[in-house]
Amino acid sequence: MKRTDIATALASASALPSISVAGWVRTRRDQKGFSFLELNDGSCLANIQVVVDEGIEGFGLLPEMTTGAAVVIRGSLVPSPGKGQAWEIKASRLELAGPADAATYPLQKKRHSDEFLRAIAHLRPRTNKYGALFRIRSEATFAVHEFFRERGFTHVHAPILTGSDCEGAGEMFRVTTLDLRQPLSKDAAEEDFFGKEAFLTVSGQLSAEAFALALGKVYTFGPTFRAENSNTARHAAEFWMVEPEFAFADIHDDMDLAEEFLKQLITRLRERCAADLALFATWVDKGLTAAFDAIVDKPFVRLPYGEAMDILAASGKSFEHPVGWGRDLQTEHERYLAEKHFQGPVIVYDYPREIKAFYMRQNDDGRSVAAMDVLVPRIGEIIGGSQREERLDRLEQRIEELGLDPSCYQWYLELRRFGSAPHAGFGMGFERFLMLLTGVTNIRDVIPFPRTPRHLEF
Amino acid sequence: MKRTDIATALASASALPSISVAGWVRTRRDQKGFSFLELNDGSCLANIQVVVDEGIEGFGLLPEMTTGAAVVIRGSLVPSPGKGQAWEIKASRLELAGPADAATYPLQKKRHSDEFLRAIAHLRPRTNKYGALFRIRSEATFAVHEFFRERGFTHVHAPILTGSDCEGAGEMFRVTTLDLRQPLSKDAAEEDFFGKEAFLTVSGQLSAEAFALALGKVYTFGPTFRAENSNTARHAAEFWMVEPEFAFADIHDDMDLAEEFLKQLITRLRERCAADLALFATWVDKGLTAAFDAIVDKPFVRLPYGEAMDILAASGKSFEHPVGWGRDLQTEHERYLAEKHFQGPVIVYDYPREIKAFYMRQNDDGRSVAAMDVLVPRIGEIIGGSQREERLDRLEQRIEELGLDPSCYQWYLELRRFGSAPHAGFGMGFERFLMLLTGVTNIRDVIPFPRTPRHLEF
Repeated sequence: MKRTDIATALASASALPSISVAGWVRTRRDQKGFSFLELNDGSCLANIQVVVDEGIEGFGLLPEMTTGAAVVIRGSLVPSPGKGQAWEIKASRLELAGPADAATYPLQKKRHSDEFLRAIAHLRPRTNKYGALFRIRSEATFAVHEFFRERGFTHVHAPILTGSDCEGAGEMFRVTTLDLRQPLSKDAAEEDFFGKEAFLTVSGQLSAEAFALALGKVYTFGPTFRAENSNTARHAAEFWMVEPEFAFADIHDDMDLAEEFLKQLITRLRERCAADLALFATWVDKGLTAAFDAIVDKPFVRLPYGEAMDILAASGKSFEHPVGWGRDLQTEHERYLAEKHFQGPVIVYDYPREIKAFYMRQNDDGRSVAAMDVLVPRIGEIIGGSQREERLDRLEQRIEELGLDPSCYQWYLELRRFGSAPHAGFGMGFERFLMLLTGVTNIRDVIPFPRTPRHLEF
Repeated sequence: MKRTDIATALASASALPSISVAGWVRTRRDQKGFSFLELNDGSCLANIQVVVDEGIEGFGLLPEMTTGAAVVIRGSLVPSPGKGQAWEIKASRLELAGPADAATYPLQKKRHSDEFLRAIAHLRPRTNKYGALFRIRSEATFAVHEFFRERGFTHVHAPILTGSDCEGAGEMFRVTTLDLRQPLSKDAAEEDFFGKEAFLTVSGQLSAEAFALALGKVYTFGPTFRAENSNTARHAAEFWMVEPEFAFADIHDDMDLAEEFLKQLITRLRERCAADLALFATWVDKGLTAAFDAIVDKPFVRLPYGEAMDILAASGKSFEHPVGWGRDLQTEHERYLAEKHFQGPVIVYDYPREIKAFYMRQNDDGRSVAAMDVLVPRIGEIIGGSQREERLDRLEQRIEELGLDPSCYQWYLELRRFGSAPHAGFGMGFERFLMLLTGVTNIRDVIPFPRTPRHLEF
C-alpha cells in the first residue's frame, strides 16, 4: 500500500477507512490500554497523532518505537478529538523500519543548541527547526525560478570552473589534478588538467552578460566560492548566488527588478511556507513579520549615494567607519539608513567609481558609476547590482586605468564590439536572503552542509 | 517606453498602435523606398519583421543595421501580409544600440559548424540553433524542479566541496588555497584552507540520503565534476546531475519514479518548447519525434539483468565486449536492447553486486543488488539508480569486503544506526538528457561554456 504524506493526510477533506503513513517518531506516550505516537515524515512541520490500541498487529514492537525510530503505520484516518488537529490515525498495524537507541540517539526531545546541531549536520534536518528551514530553502529556490520564468528570463548554468584569475585570485580556490605530494615543476600549470591554472567561480556575471546579449533576459543561480579566511557568522566558502542580467535595460530598470523580486519572493513564501515561517517568527526572531511588511507594503526609497553620505554625516551618530564621498558604505551605515532613518528598504545608487568594479557603467558626472545596492533593516546589503559599461572605448579605458590585464577580457570586450546594448544586472546571495527570511543569524545554519575555514565535515 | 518581448508581440491578440521592441538584426533587405529588418531578441526562435519606410526618424542609421547589430525600434504592431507570421512592426523610429561590423562579425547569415561555434561560445547563443538549445535547457531545468515539487520532494543543495576522497580520488579534482609555486611541506594539507584535502563533488547522493531520512523525499540538482582525462563526445569535466532520494521506497518505487520522470519531462517540454524542439527534429535528427513517442506512449520494459544477458547471448550479434553474468552492460549492449530488441526504453535491474557500488541493497539471492539502469534508444543509459542498503550490519560488511576505509563513512553509517528506513534514488546526467531531447551528439554543445581536458576558455 502506497504511503500518504503526512501533509496530505492532515489536509484530507474526509475520513479515510484505509491509509498508510511512514515517518519518524517524535514522541510516544503510553496510557493504560493504548499509546499515542507523534509521527513526522518531513513533508510538513506538523506531526500526525497515531493512536495505538493494545493488541493490534505489531503491537509488540511498540517499546522499540522511541524518539527517532522509523516506523510504518497502517490504519484509518479519523477525526481527532484532540485540539489543534483535524485528523489522527487509528492504527491497525505497526511496522518498525529502523530503531533509534534511546541511550545513544543524539536528538532526544529537548531544545539543542545550534552549535551542537551543526556538529551533527547529517541529523539536524530531523529537528523541527532545521526541517522547517530546509523546506523554506527549497520553496525559496523554486520561487526564484518562478519569478524569472514568469518574466521571460532564461536560466543559464554559468560554469563553476574558470580559467580566469582576473577577478582577484587571492580569494579564489585553485582546482588541480596535479599530484601535490611531488615538487611541482615550473611548468606545472601546463601539465594540469586544463593545461593552465583553474579556479572556482566567484560570480556568474560575465557568463550571464554573454547570454543576455543573445537571449535578452537571463539569470544564473548556482554555487559560488570565496577562499576568504574569515570566520564570521556571515561568511561561507561555498554559497549560492542568484544573478539576473538583462539587455536594453538601465540602472532604473535594474532597481525596479530588484524591488519586484524581493517583494514577490517574500509574498509567495509567506503564502506557501506559513507554518514553517511561523516557527521562526515565534522562536527565532519576533521581528520577522514587521520586517516582511516593511519590504512588501511600500515602495523602496531610492537614494543617490551622495545624499546617503549627507544623511549619515548629519545623523550625529559616531560611526566606527568614517563617512564622506569616496568611502564605501559599511554594514553599520547600511543598517542606520534602512533601520533608523528610513525604517524600510533603501536603494542607494550612483556610487563613486573608485570603490566599484571596472565593468560598471560610468555616469556623465565623470566621478560616479551606475551601481546600486539594496539595503534592508537588520541585514544591510541584500542585493548589489549595476548597469554594465556597454561602450567599448569606455570599458577599455577603465581596464587600462585600473591596471587590469586586457588579455583576460578579450571575449568580454567582444560583446561590446558586436551588437552591444545597454544592459544591467544584480546579484543576491541566496543564503543572506534565507537569513532575512528566517532571522537565523549564522550563515552556517541555513546551508545543508556548510563549508568554512577548517570545516569540511560530511 | 518599455520594450515588449518579440515572443509576446508575435502572440498578440490584436494590433497595437504603439510598441517598442529591441533586439539583434538577423538580416536586412533593402527595397526601393523601404527596408525589411528581421529582428530577434532571444525570447523565441522566431524573428519579427520590421518594415522601415524611407525617411522615418533614425532612417540614416539603417546602413549600420547589419547582421548582429543591436537596435531599438518604435512603431506599431500591424497584421503582416507575409506568410508564416501574423504580425509585423511598422517602424516609426530607429535607434542603433551597438553596430556589428560586417567585415569582422563572425556570425554572418550562413550555417556554421559546431566546432567553429564552440570556439566562440560567448557568441553562439545568438544563432538559431544555440538560442533554441539554451531556451530548452532552461525549460528543462524548470520542468525538473516542477516534477519533484509536485510530488512533495524538497530540493537540497548538496555541497560542491567535499572532504571525502573515499569515492575514488583518482577522478576527483583537488581544491586548494596553498601556494603551489612553493614546494609543499609534508603537512601541507593541514595548512590548507580546510585543514585537510578538499575535492569537488562527484555526486550529491550521500548528502541526499541524509536529508531523505529526515524530510522523506528530496532531490539534488547541481554541478558535479569528473577529472577523467577522456576526450569523448560524451564526457565533460563539469556537468549537472539530478538526484532524487526518497525514504520508505524500494527498487520498484525507484523504477516507477524514473519512468514517470522521463515521461513527464518529455511531455511538458514538447508542449512548451515546440518551436525550439522542431528546429532539432528538422535540422539535427529526424528521428526525434519517434524517439519521444517511444518514451511517452508505452510502459518501459522491466528486465532482470540475468534475462538481459540471455537476450544478448542469444542475439547472434558479435559484440565488441563479451556478455555473460558478472559483466557490465556496455553502450553497444544497452543500445541493442533498447533500439533493436525492445524498440523502446528498458529498465534493467538486479545487477551482480560485484559490478555495483557498496551502498546498493543486497538482494536475498546473495549475488545481486537492487540496482537499476534506464536504457533508451540512441543514448543507452540515461538514468542509474538503486535501492540503498539500509541495514547497518550488511552495509558495514560490504564496506569491509571491498576494503573501503570505514572511517570515511561514519556519519553515513549513523543514518542506519538511528531511524534507518528503506530508501532509494537515482541519478540522471542533465546534459545526457538534453542530448536525448535535441539529438545533439556532442556534450560540449549542450553546455553554455563546456569544460573538457585542456579546454577552459571564457
